[in-house]
Amino acid sequence: MTDDCPRSSCAINRTLEIIGDRWSMLIIRDIMFAGKRHFCELLACEESISSNILATRLKNLVAHGVLTKADDPSHKQKAVYSLTEQGLALLPLLAEMQQWGAAQLVPPSRRGVRSPGELTKLASELRAAHLGRSPRRLDPRAPRRRGAAR
Amino acid sequence: MTDDCPRSSCAINRTLEIIGDRWSMLIIRDIMFAGKRHFCELLACEESISSNILATRLKNLVAHGVLTKADDPSHKQKAVYSLTEQGLALLPLLAEMQQWGAAQLVPPSRRGVRSPGELTKLASELRAAHLGRSPRRLDPRAPRRRGAAR
Repeated sequence: MTDDCPRSSCAINRTLEIIGDRWSMLIIRDIMFAGKRHFCELLACEESISSNILATRLKNLVAHGVLTKADDPSHKQKAVYSLTEQGLALLPLLAEMQQWGAAQLVPPSRRGVRSPGELTKLASELRAAHLGRSPRRLDPRAPRRRGAAR
Repeated sequence: MTDDCPRSSCAINRTLEIIGDRWSMLIIRDIMFAGKRHFCELLACEESISSNILATRLKNLVAHGVLTKADDPSHKQKAVYSLTEQGLALLPLLAEMQQWGAAQLVPPSRRGVRSPGELTKLASELRAAHLGRSPRRLDPRAPRRRGAAR
């Protein structure tokens, strides 16, 4: 996964080599849909990620330009993780994963698939929050979006 | 991955639990884009999959209703694998993986992203080949589509 020498020239294989493990995708999910930006927030994952796996995957995602890591101006001892343009470009892929997975879950009431319009709005919000001036959520009083991502 | 008790109710997590390992996605890629249908064809994978991993992943994909396994009428000792409707529904996800991965590969000439029209045509061909009467490719004389998937 962290190998910088692709095993083939296939674009799908390249995606899988960079983010094709379950934990990396769950980390990106939590940053994208739950507004998580700090290590401790990402550690509080419903699927119980371990701290060493989280640290390894974050390092890999930063190394591959999917995330950036910076000092958090509001918490001097904390680092804040942000999506890059490359990371933001994963939104349609996550949306497809969500749509396919929702069809596998029962009961159907759990299906919470976003419409194209909702995705465009979310992409715009993520762009402002991650590439804009504020490293935090646009409105910290707003409820987290995790529920809507399920 | 083969756990039938999801670790969360998240649709993205469910997708990852079913097909969220690199090899499963590469198997689906080869069935979808290279027209592979038999174990020995899938074993001849550019990324060098081992036979025991291939066997385990195929069993898992059949168990989760992504593929079906049937006797091949043209080769009595062979089994033929076909995509189900659920498997075919992974086409947009694979297309997103291809698009994202192509942007990570250099040189840009390797980028072979399909247009929506090409995807619709491919989906129709796959539907006929996997859910129709013939378990083989529509036209066995036609060159494999692998090149176009890269």
